[in-house]
Amino acid sequence: MDHSREKLSGVFAPVVTPFMEDVPDLDALAFNLSKLRQTGLAGYLALGSNGEARSLTDEERILVLEVFAQEKGDKIVMVGTGCESTKETIEKSRVAAQMGFDYVSVLTPHYFPKQMDGAALLRYYERIAESVSVPVLLYNAPQFAGGVQIPTKTVVELSHHTNIVGMKDSAGAGPARFLAELDPMEDFSILAGSMDFFYSSLHLGATGGVISLANVVPDACVELHQLFVQGSYDMARELSLGLIRLNQAISGTWGVAGVKAAMDIVGLRGGRPREPLMPISTEAADQIRRTIVNEGFLISST
Amino acid sequence: MDHSREKLSGVFAPVVTPFMEDVPDLDALAFNLSKLRQTGLAGYLALGSNGEARSLTDEERILVLEVFAQEKGDKIVMVGTGCESTKETIEKSRVAAQMGFDYVSVLTPHYFPKQMDGAALLRYYERIAESVSVPVLLYNAPQFAGGVQIPTKTVVELSHHTNIVGMKDSAGAGPARFLAELDPMEDFSILAGSMDFFYSSLHLGATGGVISLANVVPDACVELHQLFVQGSYDMARELSLGLIRLNQAISGTWGVAGVKAAMDIVGLRGGRPREPLMPISTEAADQIRRTIVNEGFLISST
Amino acid sequence: MDHSREKLSGVFAPVVTPFMEDVPDLDALAFNLSKLRQTGLAGYLALGSNGEARSLTDEERILVLEVFAQEKGDKIVMVGTGCESTKETIEKSRVAAQMGFDYVSVLTPHYFPKQMDGAALLRYYERIAESVSVPVLLYNAPQFAGGVQIPTKTVVELSHHTNIVGMKDSAGAGPARFLAELDPMEDFSILAGSMDFFYSSLHLGATGGVISLANVVPDACVELHQLFVQGSYDMARELSLGLIRLNQAISGTWGVAGVKAAMDIVGLRGGRPREPLMPISTEAADQIRRTIVNEGFLISST
Amino acid sequence: MDHSREKLSGVFAPVVTPFMEDVPDLDALAFNLSKLRQTGLAGYLALGSNGEARSLTDEERILVLEVFAQEKGDKIVMVGTGCESTKETIEKSRVAAQMGFDYVSVLTPHYFPKQMDGAALLRYYERIAESVSVPVLLYNAPQFAGGVQIPTKTVVELSHHTNIVGMKDSAGAGPARFLAELDPMEDFSILAGSMDFFYSSLHLGATGGVISLANVVPDACVELHQLFVQGSYDMARELSLGLIRLNQAISGTWGVAGVKAAMDIVGLRGGRPREPLMPISTEAADQIRRTIVNEGFLISST
Repeated sequence: MDHSREKLSGVFAPVVTPFMEDVPDLDALAFNLSKLRQTGLAGYLALGSNGEARSLTDEERILVLEVFAQEKGDKIVMVGTGCESTKETIEKSRVAAQMGFDYVSVLTPHYFPKQMDGAALLRYYERIAESVSVPVLLYNAPQFAGGVQIPTKTVVELSHHTNIVGMKDSAGAGPARFLAELDPMEDFSILAGSMDFFYSSLHLGATGGVISLANVVPDACVELHQLFVQGSYDMARELSLGLIRLNQAISGTWGVAGVKAAMDIVGLRGGRPREPLMPISTEAADQIRRTIVNEGFLISST
Repeated sequence: MDHSREKLSGVFAPVVTPFMEDVPDLDALAFNLSKLRQTGLAGYLALGSNGEARSLTDEERILVLEVFAQEKGDKIVMVGTGCESTKETIEKSRVAAQMGFDYVSVLTPHYFPKQMDGAALLRYYERIAESVSVPVLLYNAPQFAGGVQIPTKTVVELSHHTNIVGMKDSAGAGPARFLAELDPMEDFSILAGSMDFFYSSLHLGATGGVISLANVVPDACVELHQLFVQGSYDMARELSLGLIRLNQAISGTWGVAGVKAAMDIVGLRGGRPREPLMPISTEAADQIRRTIVNEGFLISST
Repeated sequence: MDHSREKLSGVFAPVVTPFMEDVPDLDALAFNLSKLRQTGLAGYLALGSNGEARSLTDEERILVLEVFAQEKGDKIVMVGTGCESTKETIEKSRVAAQMGFDYVSVLTPHYFPKQMDGAALLRYYERIAESVSVPVLLYNAPQFAGGVQIPTKTVVELSHHTNIVGMKDSAGAGPARFLAELDPMEDFSILAGSMDFFYSSLHLGATGGVISLANVVPDACVELHQLFVQGSYDMARELSLGLIRLNQAISGTWGVAGVKAAMDIVGLRGGRPREPLMPISTEAADQIRRTIVNEGFLISST
Repeated sequence: MDHSREKLSGVFAPVVTPFMEDVPDLDALAFNLSKLRQTGLAGYLALGSNGEARSLTDEERILVLEVFAQEKGDKIVMVGTGCESTKETIEKSRVAAQMGFDYVSVLTPHYFPKQMDGAALLRYYERIAESVSVPVLLYNAPQFAGGVQIPTKTVVELSHHTNIVGMKDSAGAGPARFLAELDPMEDFSILAGSMDFFYSSLHLGATGGVISLANVVPDACVELHQLFVQGSYDMARELSLGLIRLNQAISGTWGVAGVKAAMDIVGLRGGRPREPLMPISTEAADQIRRTIVNEGFLISST
């Protein structure tokens, strides 16, 4: 199955990493994947931002990926492999390829944000694409990357590379400018990285999304995509607005800790984030529960 | 005609203020309005950001508004009246009301951005809405306002006020969060303040846009809105992507000076911006001309 | 007295504008100036940020300046005249010159921050300097100017202009880079615009400061400068640290509203700021009072 | 030698990690340390920002630290050990302690900047301080940490912890607010993290600095500190201004790549940074050479 020759499409969950006493809880992860596997999700992002990947050791990363290998079913799996050095990103990407995963998703390096201009990022992504056998996705997320953004021009240049097949865009402005400049004849997919602009981006040519809320209400996220595909735009708009409200109440307010608390509420296993992230309070969790119920999402997800 | 009781809809041009030897060129303004009047634009924003309103004296503001009064035809006219003090904003809004204009559009005060929290902005807009007879539009534009944004919660509170009827949102993230939280039963209209997210915002419930490109290619902007209204989404997407490219080449790269140069190219009268803004170079103008031609917009606008 | 030929030196108070029922309270201003006149302050900044100048109408500006003209005694008076347009800045600067004031202090224009690059700012300040008879001070304050900063290179270029004689620098980083690049042979003075780096900047070559705290505890601010001039560095350090604490408790936390509340506490007439700025709470004012007392400054200022 | 009971004082070099064909060049590192050992530097920061620590694997970190262990002479060595997770920071800090180094310097975690508030940072640093035997230094560097800053209040709270002995502050605003609020009776040292505010901070109570320029002109940096200690403030100011100019020409313009190029110029072994950082051009290196010569620093460092 050559994913690089077709557009990535549908909803992907950036799967969280549960912890038990500050150690990755692999059973909980397997449980979550066994549930997510039964949904219409297109696939998973392993070791992404919501997976607290930057808080995992190299050994823990492998343990987590082994669970994905075992529990993925027929889902597509992208693996977050972006590190600060080109060399380490290549090494981690090769490991992901050797383990049989479908894509690597590579966040911009950013420890020295002033130096990460278009030329540096162009060379960075080209070297990675040429060094690994698995197709590469760019990951544009200035909120996690010290403000670093991939310039539109650089994305267009990288889109011509045969081993760079798409971009996950989580920047607040959404992918409109990228979609406007990209050649639609290229096999280059844009995945929206936030529920805030997932649905509206589909109308501009995005083909899917990597949506933290898909950890909590995967069926609703999938339904939103299907309503778009079917052209049921009125229903899609209403569902999208409800999911944006839910997203703001969970991830927008509390980040990963909120996503995990919401998973606990819907019968999945989120648990505490790893420190320095702190769990949310009981009151905050109650508020999330009320929002999930009020928006009518509790039944559909359990 | 009670605009405050119906949703604002369609495309509005934030009309530029031409200058001749550093003085407002009222003839050129009248010429431009006589041309724009013949298009399907819903109306104008007078004295907005693109109108370089902050660079006009009080006397010049009145001269400009008198041209609008004379040349507006049957178009709706919103007047930008936001100043740093509540008192002066009220005074300028009352003048706009007395001159018979339809709405005032009020940018957030921002000289002291740290102090402009939700409570301060709530009181600011409530006092204005209670002090003027003309309906009030919020104007959210952190890029011109030292980063000040109106919190979603504050917008929702203000949407219940009988004399606050909508918001022009020019923030890069687009109005998705506002649209998600607003009560659709309220007569509160969201106007997208950038071509980047104009079309996609319509799919989330925005009813129109205030679009700098409507100074240059008004027919194309109107056509985009009509394609959306008709449900011709494939054509709308293609047109939107082309207009986003054009917008980036003009306003995104050069700001007001680019919009004015592009107006000169399509047969309107843009001219130089007022200093400290500088006109763009001949090379930059040639590049804009090529983009307009290549995107196929030159014929439709002359 | 040709101020442009000697380095500006000492402590200047950016005098606040009192209001009474949303109208400038000229009596209160005159009272404050009559008190400040008896201190060792080098002079005043009229119509600066702390003067809420952007919240005053043109007529009110003149009324305020007339009080300064009458009450200034032998103090140096700088007048803030920066507006968004070059033309209006020149006009306001000429008025200040005609009224006999000593300097104009010109904030960077910033409504279109992306366009305010070194070239635009260079031309802006050169045109002003060439158009007014009174010497010009640059005013660098990105926190009030949408992030606009004058590049070091531009400051150096402007320092060679015969009618540009200094800079008030309020940027958080302090004036170290400017002082390092400026030719010490030029008659170009750097005034620190915050108590946070006033004393330490003197050690790098700054010659004075425009200090909001000088509205509240002018004698202590003057004493700090004198201790530096005398070489009493241990005492100066201790005093500086206390004044930084006081500054954080007043202006750092509450801005102009805090400065005004503190003036009321020490027997001057601050009163309410003009809306949209809101007065601080009674509790906050009590906290400021306690800090002033605890730091030992109450006696020295009454 | 119990460093935690005395104030850290003097100049520390944040030692760079040389690379040869994308592998740490341990011989070059040993050579550099053998030269730096002969200077009056107080010590080194190993594995800091300038050491490109985030671009090193765990194995490479150990190899680098072994060179420090062997070549440090009688210099104090701080080791940068901040990671994204509390757990991994503790592990890396314990390794540094076991290898006999004197301090660990711990950057704020920052992948999720919105969540890193005072409470989260307080707990983070307390847990580290309680889990490692070596004294802990806070490292405040928002420019490398997605904008995360340690609030002043949190620094004061942490200063009371027996195993937290100081802070390296690299934020642009300098450490004035921290110095104002800290209890001078605490054994808590502030080290300035930039030449821009190193000298001026000494006048407010900072006791030393961690200065990238100390990789290039260590003697001049040490001399600056000594001039301060001796009270030769006029000479110190002149030297400081020259070193600020040099710092801007090297690190301010080019970052680590510039520091490494400058080391090559003065006879040390800098070489290329690790990708994605790119080496500077020959023209840029020539410019740095000219600045070093013009400022009179070439002789003193070879």
